[in-house]
Amino acid sequence: MIHPFDRAIALTALDTDHFSGATSPDYANMVGPFGGITAATLLQAALLHPARLGDPVALTVNFAGPIADGPFIVQARGVRTNRSTQHWMIELVQGEQVGATATAVFAVRRSTWSAQDADPPPQMPPADSLPRFSPALRITWAKRYDMRFAEGEVPSTFDGAEQPHARSRLWVRDEPPRPLDFASLTAICDSFFPRIFIKRRSAAPIGTVSLTLYFHADAAALAAQGAAPVIGTARATRYHNGYFDQSAEIWTGNGLCLANSHQLVYYRE
Amino acid sequence: MIHPFDRAIALTALDTDHFSGATSPDYANMVGPFGGITAATLLQAALLHPARLGDPVALTVNFAGPIADGPFIVQARGVRTNRSTQHWMIELVQGEQVGATATAVFAVRRSTWSAQDADPPPQMPPADSLPRFSPALRITWAKRYDMRFAEGEVPSTFDGAEQPHARSRLWVRDEPPRPLDFASLTAICDSFFPRIFIKRRSAAPIGTVSLTLYFHADAAALAAQGAAPVIGTARATRYHNGYFDQSAEIWTGNGLCLANSHQLVYYRE
Repeated sequence: MIHPFDRAIALTALDTDHFSGATSPDYANMVGPFGGITAATLLQAALLHPARLGDPVALTVNFAGPIADGPFIVQARGVRTNRSTQHWMIELVQGEQVGATATAVFAVRRSTWSAQDADPPPQMPPADSLPRFSPALRITWAKRYDMRFAEGEVPSTFDGAEQPHARSRLWVRDEPPRPLDFASLTAICDSFFPRIFIKRRSAAPIGTVSLTLYFHADAAALAAQGAAPVIGTARATRYHNGYFDQSAEIWTGNGLCLANSHQLVYYRE
Repeated sequence: MIHPFDRAIALTALDTDHFSGATSPDYANMVGPFGGITAATLLQAALLHPARLGDPVALTVNFAGPIADGPFIVQARGVRTNRSTQHWMIELVQGEQVGATATAVFAVRRSTWSAQDADPPPQMPPADSLPRFSPALRITWAKRYDMRFAEGEVPSTFDGAEQPHARSRLWVRDEPPRPLDFASLTAICDSFFPRIFIKRRSAAPIGTVSLTLYFHADAAALAAQGAAPVIGTARATRYHNGYFDQSAEIWTGNGLCLANSHQLVYYRE
């Protein structure tokens, strides 16, 4: 049994730098694929590349235009390899059109002094004590996640009542459960609904234009996490003339930050 | 009189996509140039490009390796232009080596519903009431900024006393004063000292590997700001095995967020 996530990010090597793949109906968005699955697929090309060094520490994906349902080519080009870091430029192409671009930094980590800053990790009731979220929006990809909100659920009716803030706090995991890895963590980092849905209680037309992730999790931390749910927190700073930012963090139940996620989102109206 | 910032980011067009430039001693870092000036120079290539559409809304710069003092070539390639957005891939090359890569999203903004989220803008005493910061570190670029800290100044002696957090709050402007534009805002977004200097009170060897900016300021907001100082806030989430994240925000004195800045920083020890 192949997990739908693995089916969705599957790539076939065409030559050293080029891979073929295809969108998956399991992760369909309102139009085209869920951005998180596209981001995971672009990262996957570098993860699969024979010249890969170490593990990802930073990833930025720019969504250049709509991705059509169907096949695509991903090119992953290592632009510089140092002793312990490696820099990638990645493009997803359909026909003559660039659908998405990405840059990634990979690194071999060494053991160093480590710490978290003073803001306490998010406090959450047990996942089992919260109901599973069922999105009112008809978006297939959301069914591939088990989400349990403690705060800032997407409203079931969009009544347009502007809220003081758009913060969310939830448990989230792949559905069905799947051991966490860099690709699935990437997709989870984009599974936070657009903050404007919560702030305005309105389903404004939106589209992420740029997504950036920083990985604090190394392979050992991912292995320790397994298929258990992670805690996600999300918030926004400013919505201005068509674009807003949102930032999210992914935490273990034990209070370790696994990743930061930032994005800039286009909106209309 | 050309401002040192304009001298530092000056580019000469070689053909449509290629520009030549050189590092400036005015913005020297401990080794090579200040990352903020490199980021501003990469953005400048897209700003100067004859095919440019609109203004920058998102920028990511990856610092691939040390940049040597001296000349460089910047290539800015428009990978996709839509009706109101434009996607760029940019590279800085010295000889055969890629020194930095960037992606940028430009957009033509339309007037829409706009708002800020509930976290109040940073509260600051007047800039004039705070002393100008004088860095103990011998870094030339810091002299090109007038910084006045209300919280989280870089310590004058590195005594290794670990702090509970690494938050900073300061007024900052170009020195000498210069009207704010997209390039100078980019550099200011990278003018926050590495959080580990404040957290550990130790001058660990560091280097930013990836920097992402989201611009909320449009050309009108920049014109309104002029050469007045902006408020900067910065903080970190986690320092783990050689890499930490830091996030910063740039605000006007009137409480409008002009930009978000995020970065992942390598550290040793």
